[in-house]
Amino acid sequence: KVNRDRLMNDIHTTSEWGKGEAWGSGKTEIGMSRLSLSDSDKQARDWFRNVTESLGCKVTVDAMGNQFAVRPGLDNDAPPTYVGSHLDTQPTGGRYDGILGVTAGVEMLKVLNDNWVETAYPVGVVNWTNEEGARFPASMVASGVWAESIPIEKAHNLRSVIPPGDTATMRSELERIGYLGNVPASYKATPMAAHFELHIEQGPILEAENRRIGIVQGVQSYKWFTLTVRGRDSHTGATSFQHRADSLLTASKMILASHRIASRHGALASTGIIKALPGSTNTVPGLVEFSLDIRAPLDETVETVEAECRSTFDKIIAGETGESTEGVNDACTSSSRSCSIEWRTDFVSPATHFHDECISCVTHAAKDLCGGGETQGKNVGAWGKLMTSGAGHDSVYANKRCPASMIFIPCRDGVSHNPAEYSSPDACADGANVLLGAVLRYDRL
Amino acid sequence: KVNRDRLMNDIHTTSEWGKGEAWGSGKTEIGMSRLSLSDSDKQARDWFRNVTESLGCKVTVDAMGNQFAVRPGLDNDAPPTYVGSHLDTQPTGGRYDGILGVTAGVEMLKVLNDNWVETAYPVGVVNWTNEEGARFPASMVASGVWAESIPIEKAHNLRSVIPPGDTATMRSELERIGYLGNVPASYKATPMAAHFELHIEQGPILEAENRRIGIVQGVQSYKWFTLTVRGRDSHTGATSFQHRADSLLTASKMILASHRIASRHGALASTGIIKALPGSTNTVPGLVEFSLDIRAPLDETVETVEAECRSTFDKIIAGETGESTEGVNDACTSSSRSCSIEWRTDFVSPATHFHDECISCVTHAAKDLCGGGETQGKNVGAWGKLMTSGAGHDSVYANKRCPASMIFIPCRDGVSHNPAEYSSPDACADGANVLLGAVLRYDRL
Ligand SMILES: NC(=O)NCCC(=O)O
Ligand SMILES: NC(=O)NCCC(=O)O
Repeated sequence: KVNRDRLMNDIHTTSEWGKGEAWGSGKTEIGMSRLSLSDSDKQARDWFRNVTESLGCKVTVDAMGNQFAVRPGLDNDAPPTYVGSHLDTQPTGGRYDGILGVTAGVEMLKVLNDNWVETAYPVGVVNWTNEEGARFPASMVASGVWAESIPIEKAHNLRSVIPPGDTATMRSELERIGYLGNVPASYKATPMAAHFELHIEQGPILEAENRRIGIVQGVQSYKWFTLTVRGRDSHTGATSFQHRADSLLTASKMILASHRIASRHGALASTGIIKALPGSTNTVPGLVEFSLDIRAPLDETVETVEAECRSTFDKIIAGETGESTEGVNDACTSSSRSCSIEWRTDFVSPATHFHDECISCVTHAAKDLCGGGETQGKNVGAWGKLMTSGAGHDSVYANKRCPASMIFIPCRDGVSHNPAEYSSPDACADGANVLLGAVLRYDRL
Repeated sequence: KVNRDRLMNDIHTTSEWGKGEAWGSGKTEIGMSRLSLSDSDKQARDWFRNVTESLGCKVTVDAMGNQFAVRPGLDNDAPPTYVGSHLDTQPTGGRYDGILGVTAGVEMLKVLNDNWVETAYPVGVVNWTNEEGARFPASMVASGVWAESIPIEKAHNLRSVIPPGDTATMRSELERIGYLGNVPASYKATPMAAHFELHIEQGPILEAENRRIGIVQGVQSYKWFTLTVRGRDSHTGATSFQHRADSLLTASKMILASHRIASRHGALASTGIIKALPGSTNTVPGLVEFSLDIRAPLDETVETVEAECRSTFDKIIAGETGESTEGVNDACTSSSRSCSIEWRTDFVSPATHFHDECISCVTHAAKDLCGGGETQGKNVGAWGKLMTSGAGHDSVYANKRCPASMIFIPCRDGVSHNPAEYSSPDACADGANVLLGAVLRYDRL
């Protein structure tokens, strides 16, 4: 069994680096702002190396800055069973997203050491780089390179988008903080027997249904785009609506239309980044760039929403009115008429289905912890729920190169990517116990 | 008569400081990016002081950095008749907006000197600070302080909005570039007999109607606001539309609604600045700030549009659907429901009516230049047009403390606040000749 207070202590200690906004008066009621490859991310990485080395691990760093800590087993010719997650956060994130998964891995190492456990094969803990995709706008990019799904040059050349106008790249920041490792970033150089990940749910279901453990069967499909709307800079006081090519008004229509299209298909569409140039009160903006994140359980739904957005955005610019443009064009559509639109696809993550063997290890470990209930096949008791993740995780890419699955625990109000993100110490310990159990089970297999 | 080529030379020489984007291949086919109180603005100011001093003027600087160059007359006990405009530009502006007015004033001084003209009273040229309101978001703010319509503390504390996040204030920048003058910024310390301003039209009318001179009778009403929409940061993948408080989707609806409301009233509503925080692709933004610029010929229309925007924005947040929210709310309005909105009024410029005597001086001077046509009362010939300015100008505030009026010349396609802004050398000379004639006429009165 894990030591709950020791685990919480690691969570809160590492969260001293990169503290964000306070949401309450308590010492730990403070969010996180630890952008990938920032100075505070370096501090968290140094901690990870030191603590895992002191627990007897060998730590390697690959060319994407991924840190792999391996505790030897009885037979070290086979690859380790890994626990993995990330230590980077959103700009206004919380202290559980990612951090829980890594610290629970460290806690696993401590429990194994305390109890002189010798595993059949090595076990490892991995800290993946830039999982959030907040600073460098491609989520899970470093596990994506490890899986050889994303070319390393593309990843290295990703440019920071926070703060706006930053010119640092992943490669330049890896070099700057001393985490451009010399191991090739590839599953071939760093093979894994399996990959387990503990994470907060980031949604409201487990809490609402009063369940302790989510057994994650897969992750929904998603795609990220950057859209550029070009119009014409002009004077807000001297230019009639008819004479305008208003890129921000046009982008506003597109954001609203994407929301309507996604709603109709039971999908999600979200814009998190928007930039309007030249950025003067009395100049109609001639250039707008905005992000578009489309998600749905099925790849086909994401494709449909994308296709409808593409055709509707074209119609918004063509000045069509009525239903065809989701009702956002109006009598005075001419302001959008001389605009143009350009799409860039930044990131694609198809729907993921985790590995049955791993899902089964998690299910059994959860049953060992929570007891009761039926665990026939995939039926779980009242203590848990089989679910699909709305968020992406490094397990998505790990699952391409080794069996993988995930464990969710409830978080308050389903709130995540927010300083007020919170999971109780008992819930964190539950998750860490299931993680430990699942790894030991897999090792025995 | 002014020297056209000398005038154009001054325009293009001063435009070397703060060059912007090129729009053509010619040496002067380059826009301007000379933000108020920047290093390049200091260079343009130094030029203004040097050239006017060399032409025999006494130059003073007030506490807003306004530069007043005065050429003595026969009787120097009465205040000077001024020509005024500004040397700051939009971030992506052209080389005529403001610059033409100041350089035409300098050209006037040169013509008076060349011809040994002694005016009855002194004449002056003023370079007003931050007319654009682009960098420090209140237009005409320094003439506003001079008119004692805007408190100097408020003006000094205005914070730069370009680049976003800049912390400089007007006062700190005035100090930094050495233009925090010791003359109080007030019409009492620097009185004016009258204020004439030559400007490009910034609209398409004169060009479309093939007229050489616009006789400006007044300026339309306008108001600037900063709106803050607060929602809740949340995960784009794990948060259903229902659980969101999406501040950017809500702001998009408001931008579209403001456009529809203004359209209905024959008014203008424009958003030039938008900022969404935290600015991450996969976080639903919890905070959006955007500018709103409302204009119409009548104060009442601006008030009506503002009032309708206020009530509609409240309804957008309340989740009302249908006509009451300009059709922007929909089945899935809940994403806006937990948002709040806050209005801040940044700047108010009521409709302005220029002074009859000044308008008459301009009309006569224009008739002297263009000949023909009738000039009975306010009827002008085919060469000109009586008009109302869509843009604000320092003459608005000057007009509060002395008789004022303006002269417009055509500009290509009505384009302004854009690097491609252009008026022909002949049109610039036309305007400068009318300006000279109007000042001489007023001096004789
Ligand atoms: N878990 C998590 O927040 N991942 C970030 C990637 C995503 O946007 O889903
Ligand atoms: N002339 C001009 O562009 N003035 C700026 C103030 C305004 O926004 O109208």
